[in-house]
Amino acid sequence: MSGSTTGSILKITTFGESHGEAVGVVIDGFPAGMELSEKDIIPYMDRRRPGKHAVSTARNEADTPQILSGVFEGMTTGAPIMILIRNTSQHSSDYEQLRDVFRPGHADYTFYEKYGIRDHRGGGRSSGRETAARVAAGAVCAKFLGTLGIRVAAFTASIGSVAAKAGDDWVEVSRNTPTGMPDAEADLRAQEEIAKCRAEGDSLGGVIECRITGVPAGLGDPVFDKLDAALGKAMFSIGAVKAVEIGDGLRAAAVRGSENNDAFCARGDGIGKKTNHAGGILGGISDGDEICLRVYVKPTPSISKEQETVRKDHSDTLLTVQGRHDPVIVPRAVVVVESMCAITILDALLVNMSATCGGIRRFYGAQD
Amino acid sequence: MSGSTTGSILKITTFGESHGEAVGVVIDGFPAGMELSEKDIIPYMDRRRPGKHAVSTARNEADTPQILSGVFEGMTTGAPIMILIRNTSQHSSDYEQLRDVFRPGHADYTFYEKYGIRDHRGGGRSSGRETAARVAAGAVCAKFLGTLGIRVAAFTASIGSVAAKAGDDWVEVSRNTPTGMPDAEADLRAQEEIAKCRAEGDSLGGVIECRITGVPAGLGDPVFDKLDAALGKAMFSIGAVKAVEIGDGLRAAAVRGSENNDAFCARGDGIGKKTNHAGGILGGISDGDEICLRVYVKPTPSISKEQETVRKDHSDTLLTVQGRHDPVIVPRAVVVVESMCAITILDALLVNMSATCGGIRRFYGAQD
Amino acid sequence: MSGSTTGSILKITTFGESHGEAVGVVIDGFPAGMELSEKDIIPYMDRRRPGKHAVSTARNEADTPQILSGVFEGMTTGAPIMILIRNTSQHSSDYEQLRDVFRPGHADYTFYEKYGIRDHRGGGRSSGRETAARVAAGAVCAKFLGTLGIRVAAFTASIGSVAAKAGDDWVEVSRNTPTGMPDAEADLRAQEEIAKCRAEGDSLGGVIECRITGVPAGLGDPVFDKLDAALGKAMFSIGAVKAVEIGDGLRAAAVRGSENNDAFCARGDGIGKKTNHAGGILGGISDGDEICLRVYVKPTPSISKEQETVRKDHSDTLLTVQGRHDPVIVPRAVVVVESMCAITILDALLVNMSATCGGIRRFYGAQD
Amino acid sequence: MSGSTTGSILKITTFGESHGEAVGVVIDGFPAGMELSEKDIIPYMDRRRPGKHAVSTARNEADTPQILSGVFEGMTTGAPIMILIRNTSQHSSDYEQLRDVFRPGHADYTFYEKYGIRDHRGGGRSSGRETAARVAAGAVCAKFLGTLGIRVAAFTASIGSVAAKAGDDWVEVSRNTPTGMPDAEADLRAQEEIAKCRAEGDSLGGVIECRITGVPAGLGDPVFDKLDAALGKAMFSIGAVKAVEIGDGLRAAAVRGSENNDAFCARGDGIGKKTNHAGGILGGISDGDEICLRVYVKPTPSISKEQETVRKDHSDTLLTVQGRHDPVIVPRAVVVVESMCAITILDALLVNMSATCGGIRRFYGAQD
Repeated sequence: MSGSTTGSILKITTFGESHGEAVGVVIDGFPAGMELSEKDIIPYMDRRRPGKHAVSTARNEADTPQILSGVFEGMTTGAPIMILIRNTSQHSSDYEQLRDVFRPGHADYTFYEKYGIRDHRGGGRSSGRETAARVAAGAVCAKFLGTLGIRVAAFTASIGSVAAKAGDDWVEVSRNTPTGMPDAEADLRAQEEIAKCRAEGDSLGGVIECRITGVPAGLGDPVFDKLDAALGKAMFSIGAVKAVEIGDGLRAAAVRGSENNDAFCARGDGIGKKTNHAGGILGGISDGDEICLRVYVKPTPSISKEQETVRKDHSDTLLTVQGRHDPVIVPRAVVVVESMCAITILDALLVNMSATCGGIRRFYGAQD
Repeated sequence: MSGSTTGSILKITTFGESHGEAVGVVIDGFPAGMELSEKDIIPYMDRRRPGKHAVSTARNEADTPQILSGVFEGMTTGAPIMILIRNTSQHSSDYEQLRDVFRPGHADYTFYEKYGIRDHRGGGRSSGRETAARVAAGAVCAKFLGTLGIRVAAFTASIGSVAAKAGDDWVEVSRNTPTGMPDAEADLRAQEEIAKCRAEGDSLGGVIECRITGVPAGLGDPVFDKLDAALGKAMFSIGAVKAVEIGDGLRAAAVRGSENNDAFCARGDGIGKKTNHAGGILGGISDGDEICLRVYVKPTPSISKEQETVRKDHSDTLLTVQGRHDPVIVPRAVVVVESMCAITILDALLVNMSATCGGIRRFYGAQD
Repeated sequence: MSGSTTGSILKITTFGESHGEAVGVVIDGFPAGMELSEKDIIPYMDRRRPGKHAVSTARNEADTPQILSGVFEGMTTGAPIMILIRNTSQHSSDYEQLRDVFRPGHADYTFYEKYGIRDHRGGGRSSGRETAARVAAGAVCAKFLGTLGIRVAAFTASIGSVAAKAGDDWVEVSRNTPTGMPDAEADLRAQEEIAKCRAEGDSLGGVIECRITGVPAGLGDPVFDKLDAALGKAMFSIGAVKAVEIGDGLRAAAVRGSENNDAFCARGDGIGKKTNHAGGILGGISDGDEICLRVYVKPTPSISKEQETVRKDHSDTLLTVQGRHDPVIVPRAVVVVESMCAITILDALLVNMSATCGGIRRFYGAQD
Repeated sequence: MSGSTTGSILKITTFGESHGEAVGVVIDGFPAGMELSEKDIIPYMDRRRPGKHAVSTARNEADTPQILSGVFEGMTTGAPIMILIRNTSQHSSDYEQLRDVFRPGHADYTFYEKYGIRDHRGGGRSSGRETAARVAAGAVCAKFLGTLGIRVAAFTASIGSVAAKAGDDWVEVSRNTPTGMPDAEADLRAQEEIAKCRAEGDSLGGVIECRITGVPAGLGDPVFDKLDAALGKAMFSIGAVKAVEIGDGLRAAAVRGSENNDAFCARGDGIGKKTNHAGGILGGISDGDEICLRVYVKPTPSISKEQETVRKDHSDTLLTVQGRHDPVIVPRAVVVVESMCAITILDALLVNMSATCGGIRRFYGAQD
């Protein structure tokens, strides 16, 4: 396995288990010269943190990120930025029952089959806790994207049977609802559905939508490294994601070409599109429009309802997962989606710089 | 741009433009010792070839693959396998009208923005013709997977408003219907819808489903290189794909955990699952069950209906795309989906060999 | 094996065997907008071509490169550039004696051990012929470097016991001597030594020196991707290279720090060094000075003197290698060294563009 | 810059600055199932540690490695292994004089040119301290190689003008001499030369030889990823290395083919070579013989003799480097060479597993 590193020029490597000493990330290839401190990261960590609301688990992980390298006198130096997040709130004994049992819907069995050994405490490496490291990296990338006028923002589009509507103020509203919905009314209904589900010992899934604005045209590479392929990979690398749509997504497969094609038009000094069914990407390359994607998140597999399963020795057993678990992880996953999008977009932005001889010559000050 | 190479141990590099001299592929890292000749590749090329049926364009590209390296006396040697496919049926003059115009729904504008130059003849590098090279590579990979008992097969699940049902004989049926549907009745209705759409100068999209059987548990790497992330990237790298589902996909986001979790059970000498909502992947690692995914393909953007667009100089124009175009590319894309899945699964299979110390020691004959 | 691709942003993939249909290269990630035709490549191919002089083999390979993709109307498009070189002058029957015998000093045995199969005709993939593909790629890269004022040039520094001196006119002189030496007198003595060695059925090695001027300060990345590490890897990837020196090389290990350190000084608008023991690289990053390296090439292993060896079945045998072989490959390898340096420097140049936030912001026109 | 990660399947990422909080490493792709604790790493750290002998600096860095992930109940799990080494003995004030001055022979100027900012304290990222992280990774890799019968061991072959001879007991002797020489008499003379040099405020370089035994034939990939190319890159990635030889190295360029070729012969059940001029690698692939390489290390650039240099503002200045510095780094670099070799060999060992269809089929238990 060497699956913990991703990226072309900007390389992100995460490490750490749910109930080990720490989780963390090394960001290699981040450009020199940006002011950076833990204060830039903490707000992102807080959005992922459990225990804020009744919709999530009661654990209260401090999630304090420490920058241990790559920043000198408050400025990034171009050296790898290592951010460490100590694990403080561990109840490993909760997991002792799982040492020899495979939880349905979890990676227990597949890790055991692959590696012959697994850290059974809280999912180990496959735990959602690993995403804390991604969020730390996402905060750093998003800060730099912001200086270029690129904004990455996501929200909860649905939970269980409750769908939300996004108005013009969707960023602000969604940051303040417990569910991450951009719609106060839907948020309340979703909270009710979550409470009911939790009472029944069950769990819910949902949908997260991410919108990225200010992306210049030209990012992404043809063929295998299309921008939508990179974003798709990043989204499916988030544990519970079972489907990804770009732009109109599913709907595109059901309409006609004349409905799905976006007419080009003059816009300001450049060229725009009259509609954006494509979701801001054409032929794998950003077209300057808003990039829009939706990810479908399965219900949390840890439920307190009794489930059938087997032990390591193949014998049958009934399992009631104990410990504290989110009845829905969607609200906390919103910032994970944002983070993975920010990481992906920044890498594409760096790679794109060498696309033309003219751009390279200008960069190095060559005379024409 | 360095987007034309993909893979970890098995590296696939495609090259060539729609209306250039040739397209082709270099397969590097393919293991030594498999019998291989053009005869293994031609059946795959034929499935992608246009002109077989009324559902596709009237072009008749011969698509004759030539193996120019990596095979010696009929056997792969471990050296890179280069397969060249000459372009023979080019009507470049059809495209002269497009030199200064950006076709809606195509990559014309984004390539131009990125590179400052584009091969306007038939989409150049972003043409569906590039996938001929992928199919050649897919045929080679699928042959080796077959010797391991792994079968990769896809079919057309829907076109426009017509959905197909897959019976037990879906492989055989789908290989013989013009639409690639595993359902003769739906196939006829889909042909009618396509004929009607073509007559109106418009185009249709659809859905392709791929099922991969015989995959051992353990393939895929945690975190960023999850098997579903790799498959997702591979699927979104196919030009017209706008959404990807793994297993139950969208549906997983709408049900409860108790419905979505698959109960483990003893099966033969090993462990199985009573259901397969997960689609054969848990925590990014194959679980030994059938891997199932669905891709949503947008309608062909080339339509003969008049469309609004702009020229390079930003001036408005009306465009009627000329030349021969598929009213729906789904039937021809089925084998492209299969090919990209085969390439992805084989790479994961090779990477997985070094997952455990015990496996490495056994491989090298170390004593315990 | 996936060893036939190299590079970060600029990815070079070679394919083809000595006595197969063709050798060739795919250059992926080459920037759009440079004029390119076969005429740019042929002079490089000619410098590598055997048969020009008595110092090399009598074969006369035409080595005609064909650009089959990535160039449109005479201009690079950003798409992969595939260059094919057909093999025309093959005497495979010369090699029939080698089917079951391992030649000393060649890769016959190791390929067989690794792959269980080998193309015994002329070394197959490990043949020097593979470097024709690298030279084609090198010609393309060197052309673009030239537009940035970067010149990569190498010469033969010694053959057998004859060392050459490089005067101010070393580039011109070395391009016109049969040995590639920048010193007409030494060239004559080397030719004599080669003639004598050939008459005795033996072979010679030698040293190639490469000097790269006009490289801006800042190329190369700290730690594992140092510019000297990348150049070192590129040099050792050339078949017969057994040692590589950067700058003063060996001599640096024998002198004192006060002798080896290069004093910095003001130079023009910038900073220079009073001496260049470092060879233009400090801490793995170019310092703006001339980059200087030397590679040590072993004598051609194919000799007509009788040698002891074994067959596949481990039985002893005596071998007299037949066919036409260079008594020294150094003169033909000079352009291979240049090509690998050009490829390496161009990749470093592209990677370096994203080193600072300020550079990225300027590139994308962000306001300060 | 994304130069802090290296490797194909086994990916090593280091982070941290000389005078920052910590240095460390993430080892991704290490196989599951090996017992591992800090006790395996400390002996390697101790060999790199300064302050043991008069030949090195008086600093006494504790260099205590902490494994923070990837090990569960004493066993590697296949997850990334993160090893953190806190910096404890920092005298950053020693470096205040260097804030605006570029030290000759150091990376101060090139980092500044590349990044526009540098951590001037002790070289920051380009400090030899970074190698502590590599040694931690090397210890882990070497342990596993040991279980396969592969031993990686290096020694000091020369310092300044003193060359050492390696007898049969070279491993044991060299581990116990202050200089790392395998020759007690030469060790004493080298100590004298070092003492004299230190008294004069100057520094020395030297040569390190590494010998790797027990490597199976077949490691390394043809063309760009030759085993010697990978080792060469790894060696040149060590800060002060200015030349690398494989096998006979330089000498190979000066002798004839008949002298340099190693005759094959039957050996035990397999095939061996009567001599080993090649250094255990033919055509970039290991041949089963001892792999032998030599690296040439420049004298420490930090000397207390007064040196000419310039400030950031290009003005001239005279510099006397203060603080504690090794008059020669060779003895401490021996274990760094071993570590980088161990990392490289292990990666090649993992990559090689997928070279043949037969090997893959046996691994997965496919029937013939």
